Amino acid sequence: MTYCVGLLLNEGMVLLSDTRTNAGLDNIATYRKMFVFENSGERVITVLTAGSLSVTQTTVARLREAIDDLDATPATSILLAPTMLKVAEIIGATLASVRQDIEGKMNASKITAAASMIVAGQRVGGAMRMFLIYPEGNFIEATEDTPFLQIGEHKYGKPILDRVVRPDTSLADAQKAVLLSMDSTLRSNLSVGMPLDLAVIERDACRVTMRRRIEAGDPDFAAMSEAWSAALRDGFSRIRI
Amino acid sequence: MTYCVGLLLNEGMVLLSDTRTNAGLDNIATYRKMFVFENSGERVITVLTAGSLSVTQTTVARLREAIDDLDATPATSILLAPTMLKVAEIIGATLASVRQDIEGKMNASKITAAASMIVAGQRVGGAMRMFLIYPEGNFIEATEDTPFLQIGEHKYGKPILDRVVRPDTSLADAQKAVLLSMDSTLRSNLSVGMPLDLAVIERDACRVTMRRRIEAGDPDFAAMSEAWSAALRDGFSRIRI
Repeated sequence: MTYCVGLLLNEGMVLLSDTRTNAGLDNIATYRKMFVFENSGERVITVLTAGSLSVTQTTVARLREAIDDLDATPATSILLAPTMLKVAEIIGATLASVRQDIEGKMNASKITAAASMIVAGQRVGGAMRMFLIYPEGNFIEATEDTPFLQIGEHKYGKPILDRVVRPDTSLADAQKAVLLSMDSTLRSNLSVGMPLDLAVIERDACRVTMRRRIEAGDPDFAAMSEAWSAALRDGFSRIRI
Repeated sequence: MTYCVGLLLNEGMVLLSDTRTNAGLDNIATYRKMFVFENSGERVITVLTAGSLSVTQTTVARLREAIDDLDATPATSILLAPTMLKVAEIIGATLASVRQDIEGKMNASKITAAASMIVAGQRVGGAMRMFLIYPEGNFIEATEDTPFLQIGEHKYGKPILDRVVRPDTSLADAQKAVLLSMDSTLRSNLSVGMPLDLAVIERDACRVTMRRRIEAGDPDFAAMSEAWSAALRDGFSRIRI
């Protein structure tokens, strides 16, 4: 399984993904689920993936092929597309098409091969936008009312986001919020695992302004996790019913 | 939807259920999901239900019929069954049978009618036991390693239980833990709703020792919820990354 989350805030966007994948129950591996497409200063597009690894890898590979194609056009390359909406449409169409191809091959075994994605980006002169793309290729967009999107095992880590994330949350608090949301998920669901990929895209930078891989045993993450546990235990013990 | 949770602790058992049901998206109503079968001082059995309302209501009705039957035997009545394991087997068999009956009627419309239950109880001279009964009638049991069971929308409220519930948790702390677990679920999922039913069964009492309905707007619950929010915000603001 997977947990990925993206926040769309006044100051910028914050993205976090885990890296655990499994084929069946026992074939567990580590794969990056965060992909960056960047023309620094002109546009940045970050894609987070959840679901069938063969679908997400093939989708990302086709997006890269379309970018590198000598005949690339604004209708085929996400680095040439005129708007973020058009970027989301290209990615949605590619995802749905790959899924159909792969499910066609798997029909005999009645296995489905669905995947979903979070697409976050900005091009120079445009607004920051963040989309959740469904397996069928349609999508929804983060807004002021709902400034975060999640894919994969999203329920364990939703309560903390519901409580603390607002459009005016600072980028520092936003990083804390997504890391604590992931921490709750890691503790409650063994199918989500370290290392983590964290990225920050500041408003109007049109590039990834901070990117960090957090390995298992990272002392800062462990200290934050322990401090949060202590704060919860402490808060719990002070409540009277 | 539903959220029900049961804790099996050294000092006793604590059970909590919501009351929201819906048929489709717009037909929302309030139904009790906690049922008590008691022969005070001799045995107590509490059943929490999740899933298709027609299945859970019919299952509970059949269990009551079997108890009231003049020809009731230890093999048919949960108030006569010799052990809690046998009680779980009777309830599991009744649940699976009702489900088959109802799904038989619904075959034409390809709708499933699954339900699951938490069964918690003790008879005099026996141990406290708690089971999660699956729609197929099989079940698992709470143990020292996993001293809580959940049905319905269980993921939002699991992180708090994972952090604070141990077999030696006091009954007072246990009530706090299930209420905070429910509070997180209520905030993150609109399909779970007040009022709540809370019950405590102290070890070896063989009866429900405390039972309380918590209505929407209950001042104690609201104060606890607000105190928890404040503790989380406070803990969050003190963490450095």
